[in-house]
Amino acid sequence: MGMIGGGEGAFIGAVHRMAANLDGQIELVCGAFSSSAEKSINSGKSLFLAEDRCYPDFKTMFEQEAQLPVGERMDFVSIVTPNFMHYEPAKLALEAGFPVIIDKPLTFSLEEAKELQSLVEKTQLPFALTHVYTGYPMVKQARYMVEQGLIGKVTKINVEYPQGWLTQKLEDSDQKQAAWRTDPARSGKSGCYGDIGTHAANMAEYVSGLNVTKVLAQLNTVVAGRQLDDDANVLLEFEGGVAGVLSASQISAGEENTIKVRVYGEKGGLEWSQADVNTLKVKWHGAPDQIYRTGAENAYLSETALANTRTPAGHPEGYLEAFANIYRNFTVSLRSYLAGEAMDLSILDYPTIEEGVYGMALIEAVVASSEQGNQWVEVAQFIK
Amino acid sequence: MGMIGGGEGAFIGAVHRMAANLDGQIELVCGAFSSSAEKSINSGKSLFLAEDRCYPDFKTMFEQEAQLPVGERMDFVSIVTPNFMHYEPAKLALEAGFPVIIDKPLTFSLEEAKELQSLVEKTQLPFALTHVYTGYPMVKQARYMVEQGLIGKVTKINVEYPQGWLTQKLEDSDQKQAAWRTDPARSGKSGCYGDIGTHAANMAEYVSGLNVTKVLAQLNTVVAGRQLDDDANVLLEFEGGVAGVLSASQISAGEENTIKVRVYGEKGGLEWSQADVNTLKVKWHGAPDQIYRTGAENAYLSETALANTRTPAGHPEGYLEAFANIYRNFTVSLRSYLAGEAMDLSILDYPTIEEGVYGMALIEAVVASSEQGNQWVEVAQFIK
Amino acid sequence: MGMIGGGEGAFIGAVHRMAANLDGQIELVCGAFSSSAEKSINSGKSLFLAEDRCYPDFKTMFEQEAQLPVGERMDFVSIVTPNFMHYEPAKLALEAGFPVIIDKPLTFSLEEAKELQSLVEKTQLPFALTHVYTGYPMVKQARYMVEQGLIGKVTKINVEYPQGWLTQKLEDSDQKQAAWRTDPARSGKSGCYGDIGTHAANMAEYVSGLNVTKVLAQLNTVVAGRQLDDDANVLLEFEGGVAGVLSASQISAGEENTIKVRVYGEKGGLEWSQADVNTLKVKWHGAPDQIYRTGAENAYLSETALANTRTPAGHPEGYLEAFANIYRNFTVSLRSYLAGEAMDLSILDYPTIEEGVYGMALIEAVVASSEQGNQWVEVAQFIK
Amino acid sequence: MGMIGGGEGAFIGAVHRMAANLDGQIELVCGAFSSSAEKSINSGKSLFLAEDRCYPDFKTMFEQEAQLPVGERMDFVSIVTPNFMHYEPAKLALEAGFPVIIDKPLTFSLEEAKELQSLVEKTQLPFALTHVYTGYPMVKQARYMVEQGLIGKVTKINVEYPQGWLTQKLEDSDQKQAAWRTDPARSGKSGCYGDIGTHAANMAEYVSGLNVTKVLAQLNTVVAGRQLDDDANVLLEFEGGVAGVLSASQISAGEENTIKVRVYGEKGGLEWSQADVNTLKVKWHGAPDQIYRTGAENAYLSETALANTRTPAGHPEGYLEAFANIYRNFTVSLRSYLAGEAMDLSILDYPTIEEGVYGMALIEAVVASSEQGNQWVEVAQFIK
Repeated sequence: MGMIGGGEGAFIGAVHRMAANLDGQIELVCGAFSSSAEKSINSGKSLFLAEDRCYPDFKTMFEQEAQLPVGERMDFVSIVTPNFMHYEPAKLALEAGFPVIIDKPLTFSLEEAKELQSLVEKTQLPFALTHVYTGYPMVKQARYMVEQGLIGKVTKINVEYPQGWLTQKLEDSDQKQAAWRTDPARSGKSGCYGDIGTHAANMAEYVSGLNVTKVLAQLNTVVAGRQLDDDANVLLEFEGGVAGVLSASQISAGEENTIKVRVYGEKGGLEWSQADVNTLKVKWHGAPDQIYRTGAENAYLSETALANTRTPAGHPEGYLEAFANIYRNFTVSLRSYLAGEAMDLSILDYPTIEEGVYGMALIEAVVASSEQGNQWVEVAQFIK
Repeated sequence: MGMIGGGEGAFIGAVHRMAANLDGQIELVCGAFSSSAEKSINSGKSLFLAEDRCYPDFKTMFEQEAQLPVGERMDFVSIVTPNFMHYEPAKLALEAGFPVIIDKPLTFSLEEAKELQSLVEKTQLPFALTHVYTGYPMVKQARYMVEQGLIGKVTKINVEYPQGWLTQKLEDSDQKQAAWRTDPARSGKSGCYGDIGTHAANMAEYVSGLNVTKVLAQLNTVVAGRQLDDDANVLLEFEGGVAGVLSASQISAGEENTIKVRVYGEKGGLEWSQADVNTLKVKWHGAPDQIYRTGAENAYLSETALANTRTPAGHPEGYLEAFANIYRNFTVSLRSYLAGEAMDLSILDYPTIEEGVYGMALIEAVVASSEQGNQWVEVAQFIK
Repeated sequence: MGMIGGGEGAFIGAVHRMAANLDGQIELVCGAFSSSAEKSINSGKSLFLAEDRCYPDFKTMFEQEAQLPVGERMDFVSIVTPNFMHYEPAKLALEAGFPVIIDKPLTFSLEEAKELQSLVEKTQLPFALTHVYTGYPMVKQARYMVEQGLIGKVTKINVEYPQGWLTQKLEDSDQKQAAWRTDPARSGKSGCYGDIGTHAANMAEYVSGLNVTKVLAQLNTVVAGRQLDDDANVLLEFEGGVAGVLSASQISAGEENTIKVRVYGEKGGLEWSQADVNTLKVKWHGAPDQIYRTGAENAYLSETALANTRTPAGHPEGYLEAFANIYRNFTVSLRSYLAGEAMDLSILDYPTIEEGVYGMALIEAVVASSEQGNQWVEVAQFIK
Repeated sequence: MGMIGGGEGAFIGAVHRMAANLDGQIELVCGAFSSSAEKSINSGKSLFLAEDRCYPDFKTMFEQEAQLPVGERMDFVSIVTPNFMHYEPAKLALEAGFPVIIDKPLTFSLEEAKELQSLVEKTQLPFALTHVYTGYPMVKQARYMVEQGLIGKVTKINVEYPQGWLTQKLEDSDQKQAAWRTDPARSGKSGCYGDIGTHAANMAEYVSGLNVTKVLAQLNTVVAGRQLDDDANVLLEFEGGVAGVLSASQISAGEENTIKVRVYGEKGGLEWSQADVNTLKVKWHGAPDQIYRTGAENAYLSETALANTRTPAGHPEGYLEAFANIYRNFTVSLRSYLAGEAMDLSILDYPTIEEGVYGMALIEAVVASSEQGNQWVEVAQFIK
């Protein structure tokens, strides 16, 4: 694996590396970790890379890695830069024949997303998007139970992602995360929705198996002087006319990262939250609720939940394990690809370019709805 | 106390009686418990009432009670009939000089509500509305903490009330509650929003101290053939431009009565839910959360929280105690009234006709917004 | 109902009155509320009693009430005095033909308990002991599930009751509760175990259906200068050789009244705690846990759980409702008794003199074990 | 790193490898993974090791690795075999000059433990014991708060570790874990206590900063025909005479791995459980409880808690991260050692040989107490 971005001061880069390390299937072999050549090289050294593979920039990296023989050169690239710097390295990677794993949202703009999609379709290279929260085993169990019809036809979806870290104007300090994530030039046209609302929508879609088809959104900027929305409330319509509500916020003081989804059907409901990731609450109409739990020995779980579980019940798995599931599942696809075999994402799934493009279209629709005075906006118009 | 409604098969009447009984301050002395004279009289007998005070109907009750000397006649009337039968007995009560405690929503229509308001203003009689959930001590503590500025200026409000009991078409069975609550002729122009959304909005307003000024609502009828909405999703604007989200549902399969409110401010957030009524989560930006708990010995609580608490911490108070707080506080007002003194609702508060009328105006606004294709609607237009 | 004890400054008297009031089946008609005649009479007046039934002392009360005709005189007496003042009024009551409901522990000493038992057996009068915690619907459900063999043969029991209120030497202040409960002359030979350990043991026995047969106890006095134990740790042996652990404490700083019981069997385990009284966790070996919930509409509950439930699921019942179940169930027995019919405690059960005597024997055994250097002590020797 | 044990079918070996991988500081370079040479070599290959470093047995591994130059040979060895196979490889490792990280309990017998201790003292090699549960950041925070006197002098300790996996006679199936852990020839003289009671005792000691000095233990074998105890209940005395209770069980049907510790002091109490590893409940006498939470940005946490945290609050860390803290902290010591500098375990601590020996002495004391009919037994006699 090579990495682009994730040098000193970055948050998500270190997360990607730990996730990639966990299962002992992936070795970081090169990187271009910063827009500063010096920082990039120093970061590489501190990560025990060979000096000649600590690249000053990603263009150089692609050029030089492409010249190495297969097996020696990096097998894929992980792109963990801020949003505005997703497209260019991803495009170069695909053009140079390198599979890509990339942080969300897919790109800075929908247009860039579609171009990447064309490239992926053309090259047929493995491509993963790190919507980490769908990597949790109990989220996969939830999706499975909906799919199997266990809760009946879906009738209502609530999803939320409250955070409090931007309660004050943190971007005025030297906090790098706050700086780029509230900056339209680096983050894109939406702040809160683009950053975490997009996770929430993806979660709702993943569990329910239904795409959002229409949105009525209100994007608010609560902290004075902030350039992007820091609060997002959205009425959703899913395929089949199912109603949903999404509430995301970066100014919900005291909240951590409590993404939570509830999907209701005609027979029961499912609830999962990052407050208790190894628990799936299964609520039955007219019968006692059940508590499904992550656990390698829990034979009652679905094949896909078990395949994404590492430890016995009660030894909690966390965020890095969910993240590692994406990396591990991606490596399985990658091996199929390298072996010239068909990739099978049915059990060891991960988010792909399709989710990435759809997520970008949703950002467009949400922003449009909010700008039009909170009108219903169809997502489909942004896809074609 | 006299009671109107609450005969056999009724749910809320028994609740009102237990709440009234709890503190030994109130004695049920008469009633007209049913629209059937026979059922009414039988209900009264089964409640150990004197036979001559088991009335065949409420008109007779008001006439005859009014002829009894003060001290002997009922001191006030409790009205626990379905919504469509609120206005008439309440009007008669006020006209006959009897204070009123009445179930929510106040009336069948906003027009009726305003007429009652005029009568209350004219008679100056004590008048309470049983928005039970604001009777919990920790809800009162939450309101206090917002009022005192402890969480700073309010920035965002989330409130929800998911239920699952109408997941199937229960009104087709002989379940009396389902029958009238889904019937526009008895319930009013909104089902889910009118029944429980109105509780949720009241809760948000009570805790935040801010009224809802604008709504953008989507009322859904999920169960085929149902006559009223059974799901309600509403974007809210509160005084001062604070944004909020309300989600209420009667078809969230497997949910009980988990009304939950979160109010965020510039310094912290408050969370309370009926899932754990004796806990108030106080979330601080940059400091550990605190857990405030109901408890007669918890000297850190506000005067109003303590005045509405009966037991030591860890001996849980419940729904009936919250309901009893309304009754008990109402009796304190009543005594002031009977003694010709000013009523003081600062510590021993309860919802009054004002909340009742505002709640009815909100129903109007919500229904109008939903009917107009989910447009923002100002509440004020319905008040004047 | 007449009451003995529970005047101003008392805690548990008010609780008993609220519990008795709740269902509108019981009316307080007389009382001797204090050892001071003046205070007793004043307390009675403040409770709206007729002046001639505010008695100066309990002897007078029994004499005068006994002279009233049946139907007019009190139907039973509630005794809520400190432990040392249980025996005398209970004895007088039984001798005068009045059924008794009495706070726990039954008496000051085992000898007194046995004498009361003889009297109850002789008079056949209804007699209830307010081990309140077994009044919760979900505790009754737990007992039912063990009884039905749903968790298989019982294999292990853990029970605990941590409190923190005596963390400091509160008895040196003027706190009346702390004063008598830490005083061997008023409380008995054990403090913490006698006050709350006895609740914990009773809970374990009630749910498991197994009596404690042997104890190995360590009673500690953690706060310097305190006269009685304020911490109690006990290894238990139940009928059939089942092992258990009981830990009770009054110096677990920050704890409220979190009595909690876990009963394990060969197929599953049950967990209930006063931290969440309306939830019974049912843990299955090899299958997802289930969450049983209090709720009048929850048809999956046992007959006895439902018969002790007042509100729909999610409208929480609390401590006073559990207490009221004892009073309500007692009144049902009382009516049978008054009608000359057999009392049936199978559904509407409450703790009786047997549990009271057994609990006193357990106190003896626990104290003996602790004094003998933490040796195993048989309970049976104290019963006969 | 080299590894001994942890081949196919093993549970804890894979955990150690993931923990070692996580931070990208450790590379598995060789191993002897099984007592079967063939399995050992195959396991090594499947872990991508160079063929010449997949050793047939650990003696060969030590011989050959010792001949490699420093820097090329393994820097330390991780021993993850069943208990009976701890001593021999650990002794060889220390004699060959390799630092050791080893699973708990330290050895099969106390005698072996003491011999290893002598060797560690003699060689001064870094030596870590993987009592994983003290690797959680919030456990470290708890220890810190006790150490700082924030809860005052410690007064009471409750610790428990309920499991249900041995509810049935699993060792009769071909489950390898159950087979060796219930076998006195491979596990040692205690089953349940030795396996998980020892974790519980270590947790209580770690958080409180107090060693257990006396035990009164009851070891039970609940499942018929089992060779070792599967349930352990122990009264504890800690330094300074503090009382404690330990309850561990492998037959608590339906329980997962819910180790939980509560330490009370004169001012407050601390509670931590593996049911919610990122939360530390801080209970104050007379003030609201506080919720301390794992989170890289939570500046209110202690230096040591933060140094053992990887992700922002709300992105949960789990069991593997706690395990990885031991490995990561060990590598920091190792670097100091390799650089000839003093090792500093004040912030980046991990359990050492001392905890290992003390834990083995506790097993001796517990077994002796149980065999002597549940008498108090001093731990000190087993240390010297």
